[in-house]
Amino acid sequence: VLKAVCPKPFLNVLDGKRQSVPPVWLMRQAGRYLPEYRELRAKTESVLDLCFSPKLAAEVTLQPIRRFNFDAAILFSDILVIPHALGRRVRFVTGEGPQLDPISEPSIVAKMRDKADRTILAPIYETIALVKAKLPAQVGFLGFCGAPWTVATYMIAGEGTPDQAPARLFAYRYPESFAQLIDILVDASVEYLTTQFKAGVDAVQIFDTWAGVLPPDEFVRWSVVPTERIINGVRREHPGARVIGFPRGAGTMLENYVGALKLNAVGLDWMIDREFARECIQSRVAVQGNLDPLALVAGGAALDREVDAVLEAFSSGLFVFNLGHGILPQTPLEHVERMLKRVRGA
Amino acid sequence: VLKAVCPKPFLNVLDGKRQSVPPVWLMRQAGRYLPEYRELRAKTESVLDLCFSPKLAAEVTLQPIRRFNFDAAILFSDILVIPHALGRRVRFVTGEGPQLDPISEPSIVAKMRDKADRTILAPIYETIALVKAKLPAQVGFLGFCGAPWTVATYMIAGEGTPDQAPARLFAYRYPESFAQLIDILVDASVEYLTTQFKAGVDAVQIFDTWAGVLPPDEFVRWSVVPTERIINGVRREHPGARVIGFPRGAGTMLENYVGALKLNAVGLDWMIDREFARECIQSRVAVQGNLDPLALVAGGAALDREVDAVLEAFSSGLFVFNLGHGILPQTPLEHVERMLKRVRGA
Repeated sequence: VLKAVCPKPFLNVLDGKRQSVPPVWLMRQAGRYLPEYRELRAKTESVLDLCFSPKLAAEVTLQPIRRFNFDAAILFSDILVIPHALGRRVRFVTGEGPQLDPISEPSIVAKMRDKADRTILAPIYETIALVKAKLPAQVGFLGFCGAPWTVATYMIAGEGTPDQAPARLFAYRYPESFAQLIDILVDASVEYLTTQFKAGVDAVQIFDTWAGVLPPDEFVRWSVVPTERIINGVRREHPGARVIGFPRGAGTMLENYVGALKLNAVGLDWMIDREFARECIQSRVAVQGNLDPLALVAGGAALDREVDAVLEAFSSGLFVFNLGHGILPQTPLEHVERMLKRVRGA
Repeated sequence: VLKAVCPKPFLNVLDGKRQSVPPVWLMRQAGRYLPEYRELRAKTESVLDLCFSPKLAAEVTLQPIRRFNFDAAILFSDILVIPHALGRRVRFVTGEGPQLDPISEPSIVAKMRDKADRTILAPIYETIALVKAKLPAQVGFLGFCGAPWTVATYMIAGEGTPDQAPARLFAYRYPESFAQLIDILVDASVEYLTTQFKAGVDAVQIFDTWAGVLPPDEFVRWSVVPTERIINGVRREHPGARVIGFPRGAGTMLENYVGALKLNAVGLDWMIDREFARECIQSRVAVQGNLDPLALVAGGAALDREVDAVLEAFSSGLFVFNLGHGILPQTPLEHVERMLKRVRGA
């Protein structure tokens, strides 16, 4: 009996089959650097409205696939839809980023609802079905959520901060209350990702954007363990569900992260020592990354040099080409094209 | 012939002699968490005025020694005195941090003065002489400068930013101009630290606060190599000059950093994997750090646990107890006392 070969290069890498030309997609590829995104975004009130409008969100998800023929589409959504569905009202203020009512003390966590409102999230699963129906056969489809630690940092501070001091301090002062918040987020994330799989995604990525600010013990407690619980929860419903973890800034802790978690791939930020990543990480699991988003903004010789360094380090193993963080709004489209040509050798 | 034993525990560690009770000092120990500092600071126009007023700066340097009997005093100054002395006017705006005229293009670097104005820096060496005369015999005296990369990030952006994107982008776009700026900063730093040693400091620390945002090749080029040139330059004048390097956020790149540089100690931030730091770093050079400054703000059981974890990881080797970053203004004095008792076993 011949096992069917998946025609999606991105999924092949996640399934342990190296591709001679690495599949490519970019974090935040459905976003502000695209004129067609900005045009569509201008017609909606806020980012959250866009996330909850299936037709528009599906269109935005597909835009970068049409333009650049990326190997994966990532659902257009936001990691803060989960707090929103948990009753912590999220607003996106133009130019200032997300705003929520901060969580200043344990009593707020104690009074929080412990299940996400399914009606609020329902449009997202509709988006997935719409995208799925239109996606070219060779393109993988990625769902996602924020890791509980990262989502909690926004819920506690009520906004983005440079070092997530409010959440770190809350976790030191009220470890039981913080654990309760993390528990709520783990449960909500399991249901959210499980339903994403049911709706049609091929894999999910768990974004732990702020993992890097945690000291080692807290990293294990608040990043690794909750992520493990999410993966186990999702795979109870969907055995073999493909999961990519991305603990940005984990540095030396990345080895513990991939050692503890059964991942299909791990995201590499742009700061990681590539020799360490190849020898200690890629030897155990597929890696995805790690071009500096600013090299893509800069373009020219600097971009070529950085693309080559990424390829040289990782293309001999299981590898998905990507950025080390989201694509920046000021990135010129020509630079994305130049990068793609270089990666695909066209 | 008996070699004289240095009575300063801090210097003993830097000289390779482990102390049974680790010496302790705190980054930014002369600062806003101290009521006596705030009182004195209120009498001066700006932080820069305070840096350039020898009597006041000496007093501020000594305040934390009097109150806490720390094992090292660190010169009260600011890493931005060097750009100031290079003619890039620095202002400190209350609540907003430092502001400089940004460097937006290579022509500005080309027109910059290439030597720091000695008259501007002269008061700092006076401060050193005043402190030296009053410092208890067992207290080490530490001078410092910012590493060229970190100083350049402020000079280019004209302010602090969360990820130093402006400097990273400038370095990608104009590598030759950026190298010229780094050269100017290397030369100015060599003269600055050399003169600090002449004035009486026992050791210097090179703060590379923003090393962690650099991709690996850029880390070597803009952090490691310029730091090496500074160390070599200083030791040409002062052979055996003691140097501590502190590349905050270096993560997996820390091994390359300590491998390339002849340091007396290396600073560890609060995010580093302690097992990695003990096995790969402390086995080669003394380490200094790495308590999370937020644990010191939190106090209580969380503080005790974190202090114990730091001691357990590092106190069997060459070790200076410190924070993993500067002490925060909101840190209660009682927490510092509690931490000191625990470290000193009193």
